[in-house]
Amino acid sequence: MNIEQLKTLLLEVKNDQCDIETALNQLKILPYEDLEYAKVDHHRELRNGYPEVIYSPGKSLDQIKGIVQNMLKRSQGNILASRADLSVYEVVKSVTDDAIYYEEARSVVVKRQEYKTTDSYILVVSAGTADIPIAEEAAITATVMGNQVKRLYDVGVAGIHRLLNNVSIINDAKTIIVVAGMEGALASVVGGLTDKPIIAVPTSIGYGANFGGVSALLGMLTSCASGIGVVNIDNGFGAACMASKINKI
Amino acid sequence: MNIEQLKTLLLEVKNDQCDIETALNQLKILPYEDLEYAKVDHHRELRNGYPEVIYSPGKSLDQIKGIVQNMLKRSQGNILASRADLSVYEVVKSVTDDAIYYEEARSVVVKRQEYKTTDSYILVVSAGTADIPIAEEAAITATVMGNQVKRLYDVGVAGIHRLLNNVSIINDAKTIIVVAGMEGALASVVGGLTDKPIIAVPTSIGYGANFGGVSALLGMLTSCASGIGVVNIDNGFGAACMASKINKI
Amino acid sequence: MNIEQLKTLLLEVKNDQCDIETALNQLKILPYEDLEYAKVDHHRELRNGYPEVIYSPGKSLDQIKGIVQNMLKRSQGNILASRADLSVYEVVKSVTDDAIYYEEARSVVVKRQEYKTTDSYILVVSAGTADIPIAEEAAITATVMGNQVKRLYDVGVAGIHRLLNNVSIINDAKTIIVVAGMEGALASVVGGLTDKPIIAVPTSIGYGANFGGVSALLGMLTSCASGIGVVNIDNGFGAACMASKINKI
Amino acid sequence: MNIEQLKTLLLEVKNDQCDIETALNQLKILPYEDLEYAKVDHHRELRNGYPEVIYSPGKSLDQIKGIVQNMLKRSQGNILASRADLSVYEVVKSVTDDAIYYEEARSVVVKRQEYKTTDSYILVVSAGTADIPIAEEAAITATVMGNQVKRLYDVGVAGIHRLLNNVSIINDAKTIIVVAGMEGALASVVGGLTDKPIIAVPTSIGYGANFGGVSALLGMLTSCASGIGVVNIDNGFGAACMASKINKI
Amino acid sequence: MNIEQLKTLLLEVKNDQCDIETALNQLKILPYEDLEYAKVDHHRELRNGYPEVIYSPGKSLDQIKGIVQNMLKRSQGNILASRADLSVYEVVKSVTDDAIYYEEARSVVVKRQEYKTTDSYILVVSAGTADIPIAEEAAITATVMGNQVKRLYDVGVAGIHRLLNNVSIINDAKTIIVVAGMEGALASVVGGLTDKPIIAVPTSIGYGANFGGVSALLGMLTSCASGIGVVNIDNGFGAACMASKINKI
Amino acid sequence: MNIEQLKTLLLEVKNDQCDIETALNQLKILPYEDLEYAKVDHHRELRNGYPEVIYSPGKSLDQIKGIVQNMLKRSQGNILASRADLSVYEVVKSVTDDAIYYEEARSVVVKRQEYKTTDSYILVVSAGTADIPIAEEAAITATVMGNQVKRLYDVGVAGIHRLLNNVSIINDAKTIIVVAGMEGALASVVGGLTDKPIIAVPTSIGYGANFGGVSALLGMLTSCASGIGVVNIDNGFGAACMASKINKI
Amino acid sequence: MNIEQLKTLLLEVKNDQCDIETALNQLKILPYEDLEYAKVDHHRELRNGYPEVIYSPGKSLDQIKGIVQNMLKRSQGNILASRADLSVYEVVKSVTDDAIYYEEARSVVVKRQEYKTTDSYILVVSAGTADIPIAEEAAITATVMGNQVKRLYDVGVAGIHRLLNNVSIINDAKTIIVVAGMEGALASVVGGLTDKPIIAVPTSIGYGANFGGVSALLGMLTSCASGIGVVNIDNGFGAACMASKINKI
Amino acid sequence: MNIEQLKTLLLEVKNDQCDIETALNQLKILPYEDLEYAKVDHHRELRNGYPEVIYSPGKSLDQIKGIVQNMLKRSQGNILASRADLSVYEVVKSVTDDAIYYEEARSVVVKRQEYKTTDSYILVVSAGTADIPIAEEAAITATVMGNQVKRLYDVGVAGIHRLLNNVSIINDAKTIIVVAGMEGALASVVGGLTDKPIIAVPTSIGYGANFGGVSALLGMLTSCASGIGVVNIDNGFGAACMASKINKI
Repeated sequence: MNIEQLKTLLLEVKNDQCDIETALNQLKILPYEDLEYAKVDHHRELRNGYPEVIYSPGKSLDQIKGIVQNMLKRSQGNILASRADLSVYEVVKSVTDDAIYYEEARSVVVKRQEYKTTDSYILVVSAGTADIPIAEEAAITATVMGNQVKRLYDVGVAGIHRLLNNVSIINDAKTIIVVAGMEGALASVVGGLTDKPIIAVPTSIGYGANFGGVSALLGMLTSCASGIGVVNIDNGFGAACMASKINKI
Repeated sequence: MNIEQLKTLLLEVKNDQCDIETALNQLKILPYEDLEYAKVDHHRELRNGYPEVIYSPGKSLDQIKGIVQNMLKRSQGNILASRADLSVYEVVKSVTDDAIYYEEARSVVVKRQEYKTTDSYILVVSAGTADIPIAEEAAITATVMGNQVKRLYDVGVAGIHRLLNNVSIINDAKTIIVVAGMEGALASVVGGLTDKPIIAVPTSIGYGANFGGVSALLGMLTSCASGIGVVNIDNGFGAACMASKINKI
Repeated sequence: MNIEQLKTLLLEVKNDQCDIETALNQLKILPYEDLEYAKVDHHRELRNGYPEVIYSPGKSLDQIKGIVQNMLKRSQGNILASRADLSVYEVVKSVTDDAIYYEEARSVVVKRQEYKTTDSYILVVSAGTADIPIAEEAAITATVMGNQVKRLYDVGVAGIHRLLNNVSIINDAKTIIVVAGMEGALASVVGGLTDKPIIAVPTSIGYGANFGGVSALLGMLTSCASGIGVVNIDNGFGAACMASKINKI
Repeated sequence: MNIEQLKTLLLEVKNDQCDIETALNQLKILPYEDLEYAKVDHHRELRNGYPEVIYSPGKSLDQIKGIVQNMLKRSQGNILASRADLSVYEVVKSVTDDAIYYEEARSVVVKRQEYKTTDSYILVVSAGTADIPIAEEAAITATVMGNQVKRLYDVGVAGIHRLLNNVSIINDAKTIIVVAGMEGALASVVGGLTDKPIIAVPTSIGYGANFGGVSALLGMLTSCASGIGVVNIDNGFGAACMASKINKI
Repeated sequence: MNIEQLKTLLLEVKNDQCDIETALNQLKILPYEDLEYAKVDHHRELRNGYPEVIYSPGKSLDQIKGIVQNMLKRSQGNILASRADLSVYEVVKSVTDDAIYYEEARSVVVKRQEYKTTDSYILVVSAGTADIPIAEEAAITATVMGNQVKRLYDVGVAGIHRLLNNVSIINDAKTIIVVAGMEGALASVVGGLTDKPIIAVPTSIGYGANFGGVSALLGMLTSCASGIGVVNIDNGFGAACMASKINKI
Repeated sequence: MNIEQLKTLLLEVKNDQCDIETALNQLKILPYEDLEYAKVDHHRELRNGYPEVIYSPGKSLDQIKGIVQNMLKRSQGNILASRADLSVYEVVKSVTDDAIYYEEARSVVVKRQEYKTTDSYILVVSAGTADIPIAEEAAITATVMGNQVKRLYDVGVAGIHRLLNNVSIINDAKTIIVVAGMEGALASVVGGLTDKPIIAVPTSIGYGANFGGVSALLGMLTSCASGIGVVNIDNGFGAACMASKINKI
Repeated sequence: MNIEQLKTLLLEVKNDQCDIETALNQLKILPYEDLEYAKVDHHRELRNGYPEVIYSPGKSLDQIKGIVQNMLKRSQGNILASRADLSVYEVVKSVTDDAIYYEEARSVVVKRQEYKTTDSYILVVSAGTADIPIAEEAAITATVMGNQVKRLYDVGVAGIHRLLNNVSIINDAKTIIVVAGMEGALASVVGGLTDKPIIAVPTSIGYGANFGGVSALLGMLTSCASGIGVVNIDNGFGAACMASKINKI
Repeated sequence: MNIEQLKTLLLEVKNDQCDIETALNQLKILPYEDLEYAKVDHHRELRNGYPEVIYSPGKSLDQIKGIVQNMLKRSQGNILASRADLSVYEVVKSVTDDAIYYEEARSVVVKRQEYKTTDSYILVVSAGTADIPIAEEAAITATVMGNQVKRLYDVGVAGIHRLLNNVSIINDAKTIIVVAGMEGALASVVGGLTDKPIIAVPTSIGYGANFGGVSALLGMLTSCASGIGVVNIDNGFGAACMASKINKI
């Protein structure tokens, strides 16, 4: 409710076009409506093709089933269940035929609308074969969120020429997600090749002094290339969220 | 040198319009020119109003003096010395009258052109008084890089109403830098209020279990709000770099 | 044995109403009786409706069975087995029909008396769905200890309006238990909304830089809100103990 | 503004006792007034004898001077500057004759009202001589906040009898602050002697494997005694805040 | 070979009682014989009742079988397989009827001689029920090594009176092994009650901020009681080795 | 393509011995050919007897099968699959009869050529029985890479004489790989006995304060002996790579 | 007060040889006298030549002065101020002429009695020059506590022969203190050469991955040699306490 | 003493050419002479142009003076004092005119012989300006040890083309020292460009999540390029030792 609407309401009260009780009921919820406005306008997001999202870990299959059924009733948008294993897919499938399983990305999508897309694209770059599941989580998430996505996989810094052969696809992207485990050096090297914003995803790939992704995380945070934003270890989903926000500017 | 230019050159050789030696000299540097192309086109950056940058720590005053003198000769752009204390300012001042010292931001600028600016703005949000130096480092860096910058300081989550009173300035920004120490919760709360990309800067403000910024760093990385990119502890400069890249898209 | 009783005893010795040997036997244990007094008067606790408690992990089912049988003989109070899985429930059930299993809270109660309750209440606030088991551990424990308990779940800081819609239930509590994983920011935000003592429980919910609850733990310890006491990661039981002590003052 | 006041206002509009513009101005700020209500009622705190608080580190002497001058104008309450060294005291002294310096507690108080006090008391227990500054920070803070405070110092667990000699002062307290460095075992032992809520403050006293207070912090968090809330390392101030909240219930 | 023996040998050479080749063969190994002397005289240990020891983890059952068969041939002493699960016991049992399984201590003994014993005793003190397996590992190891061992279990510091009721058994020991998890405070308290050397064993019992025994380890290393030697987490075996060395002085 | 070749090409164009299109095609790839030259000449490696390598973890059996089939077509060299369990062996075996499984070393080799060997040898030294799998990984890898390898196992520093008995085999090696867990002291001691370059491999053997190999890693990095290069925890493969490079100089 | 004395007292009451009030006063303090007995009999320690001890850090010079003056009045024993810098020495010197400063050991002794000594000796072994201050702290402390002490310095494992040349002085000691920084390997090697109890002191000597003594600490805790008790980093004092307890058995 | 010499000695005894006492004296020291042989033949090193080395930190100027004077008498070789500040230089200068100070490398050399050199060279590569002191420590140390050294500085991965422009100097080296702080990615990239053995030196350059060099250290240990040996943080000296050993093979 904006100032104009508020003024109109008061005028209606003054002119007896609206009784006190009705006005009161509208004003009573004003603070919270305002707060509703304060929070992200999710409807706008949904109108723009964003899916509703379920983070699967820590939820029972029954809970996921219930949430999906609810969402199916509430809106016509797509639904994305992230970090979903096969059993999540099966339970969603039992509720709706629109369920698709992106196995490598561990993502289930209930696809009730075509994914929107953009002219500009998000590039997902990954270092090793073992980083691909996280890279795919990012790529699928970004796709479902309505972005054009390109992939550049298996371009680790120990074979730097493969990366250099692809400079133009890097520089033509609107934003770049770099997924790398071990020492995470790929983010620094890509950062040296482009002036596009980079979102770095450390992965837990590695062993020993990798400490579950800490070596890549620290490497990315202390990168000698400026302008790299880092997300949590293995957080392909979060990287896609940020990339999508940038891509849709 | 693109394919057409290369073809022309060969034709000239064939037609004796260009002697072997001259052609050789042009071709000899081909790989590296190409690589020069591969790397970020820094001249483009400079044309766009980006400053040349000196990271001050670990450089002697003599070294900084030399670097500045060099830059002054080489280009007409502005120069930014980051993490600069008063003595850095004095040595730069001794070389050029254009030196300005932003004390709180610990930044020296040799201002030879007016800063460019943008219609969209970057918002720098900070939690406590003690986080302001890092927030200012981000704000001044972004300004010198040619961005419009707005500030929203002292809106820590323990007094949430001050933040909520400023929802519109948050949602009207193109991207937001959130600077916070201690538990770094401000990033999560701002992330819940907006769908703009957020760059989070953990600061080393705090003591005890803060561990020099680790508590804020981990808090920001594991934020329950999606789409937050984190930079290194106290890295206001890096946050400004990323924000500038996003703001100028 | 207090001074008066001691005086009486000595008088009886003096007056031959008590022989030396009998007096000696009473005095011999004086230090330890005194120490028994020194330690918490568990009988007072039991009279007040506190249950006897068994921490299940690291105990065999046989051991648990034996302990329960012992307790059943020794007193008429309720018994609480914490961190109990289904097999613990089954073994307790085999011993007494009074066993109840609170599955989500992983708590078995042998309920031989109605739980007492209080006029004032403890509020248990939790951030995400995945934090609920720990929140329930706290809520059930506090209930069994004889407190009125209210719950406010799923009010994470990324959707701050849901929390703000519930300010009054927060401020009317006598003490508040805040259960949160990831960055643990909920404790800070609740701490900014109330002047009631807060007990914060970091949970191990999360992945990557969460490090098994460390990010939430550090966030809560370094909270910008004052007056928050933190318990061990996932320690809903301990939080309930402290809350109960405060609530019963 | 509550429902009744809102109804009255609408009636005045209806009855032309209040013009639209005036009503509009009152309603415009409604959400935030409501939010002001949502946050802690600091005036109530001040009426109850709470001081206004300045956390000194990271603030320049000029900033502190300005803040104090502001506070002096704004209210008649006491002012507490925590973590204050002698220079802070001197600058406060230059502004008002009411400044008192509690050197060991590193606390400056502008005492313009007698400290209130309570019938019940907070007990501050500390282990070694070197823990006393933090213990005093807690004790002075609690005193200035209007609590009766008793002290029991130098009762480390390596000389357990000194602690046992003081069981009654422990059990008669309403809540207990335990301050200890090194292994922090004092919290566990006191926790075994009483059923009062305990707030544990790990100190950074120690060297080597103490790691700046981490050994005490972990020891207190994993204490075998239930119902201990832990605050940040060296955070005597925060412990006093929580103890004061409990003591004033 | 000592100086006297060496002199004798040279005399024999001189007097043709020993030919050059024989002398050479004896002298050739002199350095290593000497080194054999340098290392611990294991035969002396065996004569004194020490067992031969096999650390089971990381060895296949076949390897353990082979080692035991070898030892059975080589000497008449007892054999101790530590950290042994049931399958280790079974494979040892298949080789010799003298095998005994101490299940709680996870120790297999091939008992071919009565355990020796000592007049003085080692006391093994433990805090909680869950620490008993490590305490038993220490107790059984010390027993098999020929020491008299006494046990004092379940005397955690949260119930300090149980420990104080047993001061004399503590002070009459020659050395004391203290086994405790969680915060490890028991070592400090026992250290304050006695002037006997204490060997502290942190256990990995606990969760959350226990970090697999780190909280107890740091607590014991930074103990306020002097003269406590700490062994690795869960290393009951090593504690028994050191205690045995002290007890047999 | 070097300068001479480039000159020749231009001359041929000039002299019509090469048409423009052909020259263009050669020049077009110049940067990348140059980069191909820049990267390690893998063909040279293969000619020298190096195997092609597959790092097995994180690859599905189908992926490994495909990679091996590809390699079999592409070259005649040997193939080494590292960190391979039995199922990897079986899938490779299903593709080629040349597969050999070195079980302890967890290495599968497709042996299509005899391993080359060298006059000089690499010595692999290991401390305990449990370190042998990593030592074997190093030994087999080095062997397959065409090096002569000698082994010196089970020479931990707690029985220093066994190491000293083997000083000559240490000093005659060209380079030495030292594999040790626990405190990793073996690297320091060997480093004091020889002036040959040492590559130290910390293993994750141990428990408690070993922290998955960290104790050995830190011990080796801070060794009091100079000239020790350390590889990642359990990285026998990487140690063999470096040793092979040194041995083949 | 033992049973006999208690019986006598009761008889005296019975026989009117002692009035009630007098008896009461004696009995009233019984628990604590008993507890006084429970704690270490410090008088016995002092009679045996132990000094009174002051841990200097964290105490003001005035406090130290006061403590020393007190001790001087209270007993005739020696006084040891550990971790004492020159200023501590000077303030002690101003109070008594008996003050001696052991500079390298950072220890001040007020020597009012000749140090006692023992037939058996404690051996202090250290690795590098930089470890000597901690070694001396141990040696001087042990000496002042009345032990015969021998030193074996600068025998680091990188020059193993120097250690081996001194096997007999190692094996003739009653107990051995091993002081080492960096990787702390000396403890393992000495542990392999002797069956005497070893107390290991990690020092903070080193840089980088030494992490202030952590590398040595972890190395000693995970030593492959059994029967090593570890004290805190740089804790020469604590090692001497434990060694003295063992040596005086 | 080898077998032949031993045989000769015995023959002389047999033939009365050597009396028993003389033979005894020679044989008595046999084990240790042998051990002297066991340890590195330092004389051979010195003959080969290696300097004697003093690690300066933790030694007083007087101690350093004494050590240098000693060395000057004992041999004619060069002397290297590492980690030496100006005051070390001055004290060495006061003893001998041959002292040279390499300020950036913090190295003092007493140069009494020309440095030897080699045909092959060690390449020292460094990332940023701030890494140069450590790179110089490595370069000067390697030079003084008699190696030809080349430098390639300021080739960080964020400007990858500068590194690629220097592929031939990298591939022509015999071994390469890579010095880098921050994320340490340079080691991986160089490792991908060459098949020469690489010694990686992490530096403590950086801030925040660099944690004093940990980010670079972990990055280098987990490098995706094989065959990289890592030394301690900032350990340019140790890297030079290893490189020298490899270069002189």
